[in-house]
Parts: sequence; structure tokens; C-alpha cells
Amino acid sequence: MFSTIGTLFRATTFGESHARGVGVVIDGCPAKLGLTEADIQRQLDRRRPGRSRLASEREESDRAAILSGTENGLTLGTPIGLLVLNTDQRPADYAHLSRIPRPSHADFTYQAKYGIRAASGGGRSSARETIGRVAAGAVAEKFLRERHGVEIVAWVSAVGEIDAPEADAQRIDRPAVDRTDVRCPDAETAQAMIAEITRAREAADSVGGVVTCVCRNVPAGLGEPVFGKTEALLAQAMLSIPATKGFEIGSGFAGARMRGSAHNDPFVLKAGRLGTLTNRSGGVQGGITNGEPILLRVAFKPPATIGRAQQTTDDEGRPVTLEAKGRHDPCVVPRAVPIVESMAALVLADLALIQAMRA
Amino acid sequence: MFSTIGTLFRATTFGESHARGVGVVIDGCPAKLGLTEADIQRQLDRRRPGRSRLASEREESDRAAILSGTENGLTLGTPIGLLVLNTDQRPADYAHLSRIPRPSHADFTYQAKYGIRAASGGGRSSARETIGRVAAGAVAEKFLRERHGVEIVAWVSAVGEIDAPEADAQRIDRPAVDRTDVRCPDAETAQAMIAEITRAREAADSVGGVVTCVCRNVPAGLGEPVFGKTEALLAQAMLSIPATKGFEIGSGFAGARMRGSAHNDPFVLKAGRLGTLTNRSGGVQGGITNGEPILLRVAFKPPATIGRAQQTTDDEGRPVTLEAKGRHDPCVVPRAVPIVESMAALVLADLALIQAMRA
Amino acid sequence: MFSTIGTLFRATTFGESHARGVGVVIDGCPAKLGLTEADIQRQLDRRRPGRSRLASEREESDRAAILSGTENGLTLGTPIGLLVLNTDQRPADYAHLSRIPRPSHADFTYQAKYGIRAASGGGRSSARETIGRVAAGAVAEKFLRERHGVEIVAWVSAVGEIDAPEADAQRIDRPAVDRTDVRCPDAETAQAMIAEITRAREAADSVGGVVTCVCRNVPAGLGEPVFGKTEALLAQAMLSIPATKGFEIGSGFAGARMRGSAHNDPFVLKAGRLGTLTNRSGGVQGGITNGEPILLRVAFKPPATIGRAQQTTDDEGRPVTLEAKGRHDPCVVPRAVPIVESMAALVLADLALIQAMRA
Amino acid sequence: MFSTIGTLFRATTFGESHARGVGVVIDGCPAKLGLTEADIQRQLDRRRPGRSRLASEREESDRAAILSGTENGLTLGTPIGLLVLNTDQRPADYAHLSRIPRPSHADFTYQAKYGIRAASGGGRSSARETIGRVAAGAVAEKFLRERHGVEIVAWVSAVGEIDAPEADAQRIDRPAVDRTDVRCPDAETAQAMIAEITRAREAADSVGGVVTCVCRNVPAGLGEPVFGKTEALLAQAMLSIPATKGFEIGSGFAGARMRGSAHNDPFVLKAGRLGTLTNRSGGVQGGITNGEPILLRVAFKPPATIGRAQQTTDDEGRPVTLEAKGRHDPCVVPRAVPIVESMAALVLADLALIQAMRA
Repeated sequence: MFSTIGTLFRATTFGESHARGVGVVIDGCPAKLGLTEADIQRQLDRRRPGRSRLASEREESDRAAILSGTENGLTLGTPIGLLVLNTDQRPADYAHLSRIPRPSHADFTYQAKYGIRAASGGGRSSARETIGRVAAGAVAEKFLRERHGVEIVAWVSAVGEIDAPEADAQRIDRPAVDRTDVRCPDAETAQAMIAEITRAREAADSVGGVVTCVCRNVPAGLGEPVFGKTEALLAQAMLSIPATKGFEIGSGFAGARMRGSAHNDPFVLKAGRLGTLTNRSGGVQGGITNGEPILLRVAFKPPATIGRAQQTTDDEGRPVTLEAKGRHDPCVVPRAVPIVESMAALVLADLALIQAMRA
Repeated sequence: MFSTIGTLFRATTFGESHARGVGVVIDGCPAKLGLTEADIQRQLDRRRPGRSRLASEREESDRAAILSGTENGLTLGTPIGLLVLNTDQRPADYAHLSRIPRPSHADFTYQAKYGIRAASGGGRSSARETIGRVAAGAVAEKFLRERHGVEIVAWVSAVGEIDAPEADAQRIDRPAVDRTDVRCPDAETAQAMIAEITRAREAADSVGGVVTCVCRNVPAGLGEPVFGKTEALLAQAMLSIPATKGFEIGSGFAGARMRGSAHNDPFVLKAGRLGTLTNRSGGVQGGITNGEPILLRVAFKPPATIGRAQQTTDDEGRPVTLEAKGRHDPCVVPRAVPIVESMAALVLADLALIQAMRA
Repeated sequence: MFSTIGTLFRATTFGESHARGVGVVIDGCPAKLGLTEADIQRQLDRRRPGRSRLASEREESDRAAILSGTENGLTLGTPIGLLVLNTDQRPADYAHLSRIPRPSHADFTYQAKYGIRAASGGGRSSARETIGRVAAGAVAEKFLRERHGVEIVAWVSAVGEIDAPEADAQRIDRPAVDRTDVRCPDAETAQAMIAEITRAREAADSVGGVVTCVCRNVPAGLGEPVFGKTEALLAQAMLSIPATKGFEIGSGFAGARMRGSAHNDPFVLKAGRLGTLTNRSGGVQGGITNGEPILLRVAFKPPATIGRAQQTTDDEGRPVTLEAKGRHDPCVVPRAVPIVESMAALVLADLALIQAMRA
Repeated sequence: MFSTIGTLFRATTFGESHARGVGVVIDGCPAKLGLTEADIQRQLDRRRPGRSRLASEREESDRAAILSGTENGLTLGTPIGLLVLNTDQRPADYAHLSRIPRPSHADFTYQAKYGIRAASGGGRSSARETIGRVAAGAVAEKFLRERHGVEIVAWVSAVGEIDAPEADAQRIDRPAVDRTDVRCPDAETAQAMIAEITRAREAADSVGGVVTCVCRNVPAGLGEPVFGKTEALLAQAMLSIPATKGFEIGSGFAGARMRGSAHNDPFVLKAGRLGTLTNRSGGVQGGITNGEPILLRVAFKPPATIGRAQQTTDDEGRPVTLEAKGRHDPCVVPRAVPIVESMAALVLADLALIQAMRA
């Protein structure tokens, strides 16, 4: 019963691979916001597989339809229903797996939890579930951009052992990110990442990576201590994305190795307002935004579906050798970029609406 | 308005440094659980400062009183009110800071958010806020232990640049952790950590660290996809603790560097049930517990309050030099150990109650 | 942001008249429940207008499609998306009203709240919004019936000044209710009610009424003191239905006129369990169900849309005479019967799941 | 797990009769509101029993202490903890009842729900639970009055068969209400009511009644369709008060007997804004406030505790005769007046904060 995220800006997603459709209901989006299907389609297209040789080969159109909540291109303040039909279902691909819980997939745990699991695909745990998040995130982002000037940009900062040099968080934009299929803004690193993904694919293997995200122009004062601190809600949002294993804000785990005298962010005057000279805090102090850019990093494990043979067991513990036959991505981080942006937008839109009560 | 965490097992904390008291209301704790103040005091004592030369020198008694919700040592199913009076307030210590927002503290952001901030101490952002968490966590833990056999143990795995060798997650217990003041179970590393903290103190500086936590005997099937995945709620809970900057589950950021063939956890028969040979998943797959130990790590920044002079500005941007005079800890991770355990217990107790609806 | 009802069994509705569709996402429905579109269609058909000469003349098919959450006729435990497309939209009927807020409608208040209102029909405040409730209620009811044996039956107990004699709450069933168009199980009263509705229609006027509802076989122990008492959640659910003005449980307002010695329900042994001799409590004591039938009554005002001329003003306060031209029902209570049942089912399904945590 | 009410202005109550104390945590109260214990004490004193010969004879001081959330008489925006110690406990009074579930009390249902019940008094179902509500309501009311000019006044409009004439909702104030012990502003009716309560007391019996409440100067636009409609949340709030059996808004059940042409509230210009000529809607249309006074009525059953002998059974169904010996009120409605006001304030404060997000 946790298909809803948010308090005032609430997104409720539904749908699984091989169902009739996937979608989301957005409740609490402010009225009189300009909104058309094209606004949503843009991010859905960035999320879509099959756009490059780096991703899986499915050709899914993923067209979002607005079912309710707008009239003449403006939001009404009522719930916005968004639906994407599943057109490419191919349930047969997965049929032979049904007695074998795939290692590091959710087959075993869904069965343990619900006493039943979708016979085909990953069901609710598949990547298609994220369509609803991205659709809702596109709406949240539009609200944040138009009402508050917020800019959210994510990119791939690591693939396997290959790390990108630090990006300029003040300037990086989506065109720069999308310049390569791997969505790393540093051209040279991007080539190395593409080579690494290609090697993994050729080895019938997969590889993990890291997505970094910056949120600029976020007003100071967002975040609800103590359990709704900005970084706490961002951490929840990010760790709810499939395949994530870690979250950092600002200095992150590296900050744990530092001394306070080196870590503290001293205040300085910045264009008339109080800002900080450095930003090891990552835009939040005491759980509340301070007006500096929010900086976060999300770790993604290598996809669990691999073509290589794996020694595992079936449902009853009998040893089997498993080789995935279906379509699968060797690396999800390039497609995860708009998902991370969407989750950040959902959290910040919600916190911005909550903070408005104090105005 | 986020002083509450949980859906069925709900903890609502209140109180700040220099208020009359701090505490928590636990709503939804099952009835007929044995509960006395001693059950709560045990963890509060572990959280308390002033127990060793590593921590700040305040002598606070922190005695928890049960205000409601029990009769004859048994819970009634009604809300459990817990209160700890603040006895050692000393507001004067902080008075000279009131015009100067302390770097990397929450002074500036509380002012930005609320238009007012507590004149003394950190107010709600101070470490005293965590008393309510620890009190509630002690109750959650008792429920988990008695009804499900769950064991939760956290320890200090890094202080500054000093990392402890990997602990045996299956065996580590609290007596082993508490053997040293620094709460690192490896004796040799503990000495090095204590030396590092002492150096930081002598340098009027502070140092960060990492707390690792294991939760054993957690039933398979807990966690509520998609936004209430176990790791998502744990991440929220941990990042709501003051001074945290990062969270990992299982392989964490290191997992992002791996290939799928090396990362996947194959299934094996374990004492009649299906388990996994390795545990890079950290006890969760698809957001749902799989019966293996939950393994998580939390990064803490170095405390912001340091005695060394810092160049910063006052409220209006005028340059000032700041030197903290009051009591302060050079390193919070030893005291954070029971806080991390408490937050883990709160999340798991809630998920266990939610999952019960499916029984 | 209150398009969601429920804690564990959660229904999130969306859609308005003249949008592309209306629907609901049900989150938290237990897995392995048999569920097909026919299960939902049955109640939707009872809600549908145009089924008799008592209702408005629209011919709407209102076919529910299951978008997600089931496979092979069984629920998966994942969110169930349900969609009904709007096929009969006719926005022109309402165009001439756009500058005139209709008396006792929501035109004025939606404008005050959102700064915008749907140009056509009642938007989100129209009766079509209740489709999502009825669809979700049908699922909730199926769960309650199959897992707990709960029976929920509502009927029309008053139309205008015409009151039905008290029904036998232990025996009344839906076939008896549906025997007449007006859904009053007493044949003679039904004829009088039909005559009254016909008179109102002929007078280009409308008339109010009362729906009574009984829920049988509800397990003892449901309800969450203090703010989630069974009657509190039922009252919220019922007063959220369009056009409702009052709610009673058990003795209701008549109980306020009584002495305690006459009102109290003494205990008696009933087939081996403790029951009550009378049921003035209406199945709840202290907010918790006691195993006796839940009895509630809901007052509906006369529909605001009437053909008779009304003296009112336009948006700017200029006097106008208003005569509704479009389709409209002279009395909504017959159609409200399945809506009341659905809201009762949603509340009880949620409370049953919550109580399961205590098992 | 429903001891919390509200979304942004959240009150979490705790405590039962014979526990150490009762209280409330208010989370989300805006900062910089003037607040002292005297602000809270005023309404607590009006709720207190033993103030007249109409109520039970306990002498309880019920002093509220602010534990947190304010500094120098101003709210900080952090949770406000409020505590009232239980000083007059006398558990022995109730001991002989422990095997006999009192008719129309919550003894049986608490046992059914929790498997345990407080050995003494009504536990959480006793009237003392409402102290937390009244304390929180006093804070909510202060916020509404100071920031929005809202006035909330409730009074006793019926005791048993005695009905008061309709009061002037635009003018009635608390001094007029408090002029008599029975809190009915009409002097003649008040005398009749007092006589009726005295007769009930002399007959070792009890009597029910009705509380009417008006909320003036409520801004238009509050209320969150569809499940958070103003009347829906008010209905929930009122039916969560002990001993309530019914709720009406505006025309209520009488409205169900009317024709639309007589019931509709036509618009008129009122001091430059659009208002309604009549107010059968009771201040809400489509679930949203329209700026007219909110008018509601709440039915209270006669108290279940009576001195007269009752034929009932013990826990195991054996016939017994029960005569209550302890202190008890023959009529609760005079004391319920501030409780009804408090619940109205809590709902409206919450809705006002939510609506602020749209400003």
C-alpha cells in the first residue's frame, strides 16, 4: 500500500510489465499550470529503452495520455490521470523461468510477500513501473520550473570502474548530458563508458554505475524536520528506484573521512543573500534547503538479468543452471537519468507546497 | 509536520534542547507486550553523552518516564507517551552566537524556514531530539525481538580515515560492540579510532565516521513496493538522523563498480528454506526482505561545532571569526550507534505490522 | 490532495465529467482475490443513470476496464487500476452557465479554491466522480464478503416527506431493494416515493431523501480509536459523497432524546458469543465494532439543478434568472444506494486489514 | 494507530484515565504564534467536570504544561508537547466491574480488539482522553482567530426532549453560552434543561442531547475534494468524540425532506463579495467553504454509566444485575461544548494550512 509518494503533491503509480497499462494519478498539482501530453512525453522518451545500442532492443512507443485533470491545456487542481498502454508484451519470453526464482531479482520476494507472482516479466518490479514516476516527475518539474525557477539535471558519473571527472554543477544542462548515449557529459569518459558497456554486453554480463543529480535555484527553507528532512525524503525517493544500493548528499561517504574544519561550509555574501563558500552540505543543513544547489549521488547495481550461465536453484532448492534468453540491458544508468530527475522533482514539489503554508 | 514516522507503528517525537523536555508518542504498538521504563532506559543510556572521555562532558540523567499506554507492565494497545525532562539546560553558553549562523549548522535554515529560531542550543536540530527516537526504537526493538526473534546490532566501522575490518554480521552482538568507548568491535581498530578522536579533540576539531548495522532474523516478505521498499524506508530513516550524509544497503556504492555475474546472489538451500549463497543484496530484493541479514551503512559528517577559529559571516553577511566555546563532541558516531539501531527497529516494526495484514 | 481514502486498503479516484475518463487506483488490495471486470460492472450498473424513468436520461455505458493488478483473474497484490471512459460528453449543454455560479452547486467554491473551474458540467464535483468510488467499493466488498462473510445492503428509507417503515436489518438483501426503481424494499412506500419523485419532476423541481445501510457479519474489533473510530471513518466516507448533509449511526439524533436506561444495549449470550439484546449502538461501542450489525443513515439534499426559474446573481453579483436546461435527476437517492454501500465497504475493508496486524 | 488527526496541522493525543497523564503533540503549528499555557487552560477549564452540580463531582485540576515548541511565548514551528498529569486516579472505584463488560461502554470492544483492557476506568475510551483534543484545539483556534479572524462558538441546543429555539448564528458568543451551567444561551430553555438533567440524576439515570456549532469568518476555498471535503472531515472529527451518534451540516436531515426550489441558496451581493441569501448549505458547497458561517450539529447519546440497576451478563454470558457506584455525569453535552469547538478548530486549521499552498 505504498504506491503513493508525497503529502500535498501526491503521485500514485500503478501498472506492471504485461498488464494492460502503466500510469499514475497526480493529486494536489496546483491549478492553472500549463500542461499538455507533450510536456510529459519529453521525459518519457528519455526513459525509453531501445533508443541506442546501449539499451535493450524493445521498441516501445510509451505514449502518455492525459485522462483527467486538465481543460484547454491548463490544470484544474483536480487529480491528473496519466496512462501509458503496454503495447509490446511478449509474455512467452519469460515462461520458462517460472519455477526458477532469478538470482537478485524480485521473483522470490514477491512470492514470499504476496503468495503469488506475475507469471511473466518482472511484474511490478520491472523497469516499466518507472514510467508512472517519470510521467509524474515531468509534471512536478514543470511546476517547479515555472513557479520557482528550479532546474534539475542528472547525469551518469560512473559506469563500473570508470569515473567521470567532477562536473560543473552550476552549469551542466540536459543537452550536454544527452550528447552521448551513455549520458555522461564528459566526452572522453563517455567513450570509455560506452566501451565498458559494450564489453559487458559481449560478455553476456552487466555492469553497474552511479547517477549524479543537481537541483539549482531551490528556495531556502524547504524540508520538514525531523523525519521529512529534504535529504531523508530524497533518500527514500532514490532508494525506491529499482536496482539502487546507495545514496549520498553533498560530501556523502567521503565526508565521513574528513575533519570538521575542512568540512564546514562558511557563510559568505552572495549577490545580497547569505550563501556558503563551499557546498559540502549539498544544499541542505539540518534537513532544510539553504539555497545552494542540492547535490546527490545514487548507486545502481549491475542488472540482475544476464546471459551468462548462473548456478542457482529452482523454487524447491534443486540446483539448476540459468541463462537468461530475453531482452535485457547490460547497464541501466543511462536510462535511470530521467528517473532520478523525476524522483527529485516529486520530492521538491511536495516540499515546496508544504512550505507554502508558512508564507 | 513530519515529526511522525511510520504507518501502523507510528512514532511522533517532540522536544528540543533547552525546552522543558523531549519525548515521543508511540501509536500502534501491539497490546500485551511486556514494557517497563527499564526496557527503554537501556538504549537511552547507550545514547547518552558524557559516558566517556570521547564524548561531550554534559552529565544528563535522561530518565524516561512512561506517561500512558501500559498497565501492570503490559502495553494496552493505546498510545505510549514517553517523556525525558531536560535537566541541564545552560542556555547562556550559546547566547553570544545568536547573531552568527554557525557554519554547517541549522541556524540559518531554521531561520529561513520558520522566520524564528531557538535562541539557545540547536533547538530541534540538536542531538537531544534523538532521545525520542531512541526511546521509541527501544519499544520497536522489543516487539521485533519478542514476536519475531529479530536482532539488530550496529557498530562503528570507520572514524575519519580509519576503517575497521569487515565484521562477522552473523555473530556480532552488543556486548562486543560496547567493549570499547568507540563502539568498534575490533580491538586494535578501536584503539586507533580512539587515538584519532583524541587528536581531533586536541586540535579543537572534529571527525566523521561510519556506522554499520545488521538486522538478523527478519522475516522474508517485509517491504512495500514501490515507495515503501524496505531500503527506501531505511534510507529515509537513516538520513533523518542529524549529521548523516550517506546510506548504503548491501553492496552499496561498491556494487556500482561490479559486473552482474559477480554481484548476483545465487539461491541455495539453507536449513530447509531457500537462501542466498552471498548477500550483496543486503537482505532485500525488489524492495522486499528475503530472510537474509539486512546490512546497511550510514555516513556521518564531522560535527559542525568546533573550537578552532572559523572565518564566516554574521546574519547580515559581515565577516566574523567564530570559535565555539560550549561543550561539544569531537565525534558523534559512537553515540549514533543506538540511534541507527533505533531507526532500523522503527522501520522494521512498521513493515512487520503492515505485512501482517496479508497473513 | 485528498483523492485518496484509506490507510492499508487505499482508493485514489480521478476524473471529472467531460474529461477523457474517470477511474480509481486501488492500492493494498490483498493478493489472490478472484477479480474480473464483471465483479465491478455489477455495482457500476446499479449506479448508472438512465436506467429508469426516475433518473436522468443520459445513456452511458460506463464499462470498467482493469488496467493492472490482476493476472488470470486473480489479484497480484499490486495496485489495481480501473478506468471508465467518458463516452457521452455534450459540453455544450452547460456553456451558457459559465458566468453564472449555479446556486448550491460547487461552481462558486471551486473558483474560490482553485482560481479556475471546469467550463462544462460540474467537473470534479459532478456525480460522475462517484464511478471511481463504486468501482473500488466493489473490490472492497468482494474482499470483505469472501474473506469475512460481510454483507452490505443499502436502501432508500425516505424521499422527501415519505418515510419507509423500519426494515428488517437482519434479512434485507439487494434483490429486495432492487425490486423497484426507487430502491425502497417496502412496496407500498416505494409507490408513494415514485409518485413524489414524479411530482417533483413535473414541477421542474427536485427532492431529497435518506439512504439507510446495514453491514452484517462484521467481525468484532474493527475501528481505530480515537480518530479512526469506525463511526468516524464511516461519517467521513458518507459526508464525502456529493449532496450529503447528515449521518447517523445506530440511534442517531433520536438517541439524543433518550434516557440511558432506555438506550443502553444489555449483553446476552447469542449462539455462544456475547451479543447485545438491542442495537442502539449501531454495531459500534467506543468506536470499535462489537459484532452486531452496523446501522447507518445518510441524508441527501434535493439536487441543486432544477428546471424552475431561480433568482440569483452572476459571477459579479448582477441579478439573473436561472433555469437549468440540461439533463438532471429530480432525486438522487436511488442511485446513491450503491455509492453508500461502496463507501461502507471501503471503510470496513481498510479497518479489517489494519486489525489483522493484531492477529 | 489513529491517535493523529490532520495533514499539516497534526494533533497526536495520548493518555487514558488512571495513566500518569494525558496530552497531545501538535505538529505543524505555524511559527511565531503567541502561545502560553493560559491560552490552553481557558478551554481546558470549560471542559473540566466538577464545575457545577450538573457534572460529576471529581475535582481535577487539569493544569496543562507546555513541554516543547515555544520560546519566550512564541511558537517555534517545532512540535508542541502538552501534558496534563492525572492527579485524581482512584482505581479502586471500578475494580468490581472488571468481569462485567458495562452495557454500551467500550469494555467489550476494547477486549475484542486488543485482547486486554484497562483494569480501571474507561481507559482510553474515557472522557479524559478528550483533554488532549481540547488542548490542541485551543492552539488551533488561536491560530485561526489571529491569522484569519475565525470565530468558533458551540452551545447546547437540546437536552433529551427539550429543544432550544434557533440561536442567532451571526451573533452568539461564548459569554452568552457560559451564562448557565448547561451552556444553552436561551435562559428559559436552559432552566428547563437543568431541570431535566436534575430529574435524570435523581432517577439514577442519564440523558442525551445535541450540541450546535457555528464557525464564522471562515475564508472561502477551504476543503479538499473529494475525501477531504470540509463536511467530511468535520463529520469524522465529531464522530470521533466519545458518545456521539450523529452529525449534520446546514439543513441536515431536515434538508432531505425538502424540495430543491426551497433548499437552494441563491447568490446575492454582500458587502462587495458574493454571498448566499440563505445558508441551508451550512457554509460548504461541493465540500468547499463558501465564506458563509459553517453550521453543524452533533448528537450525543445519554451516558452509558447509570446508577439504575441493569440486567446484563458478565464476560462469559452469565446473567448479572449491574448498578454503577462510581462518579458519573447524568449528561455530557454541557462539557462537550468546548470539545466540539476544539474538533472544529483542528479541522479548519488543517484545511487553512493546506489551502495556503495554492496562494
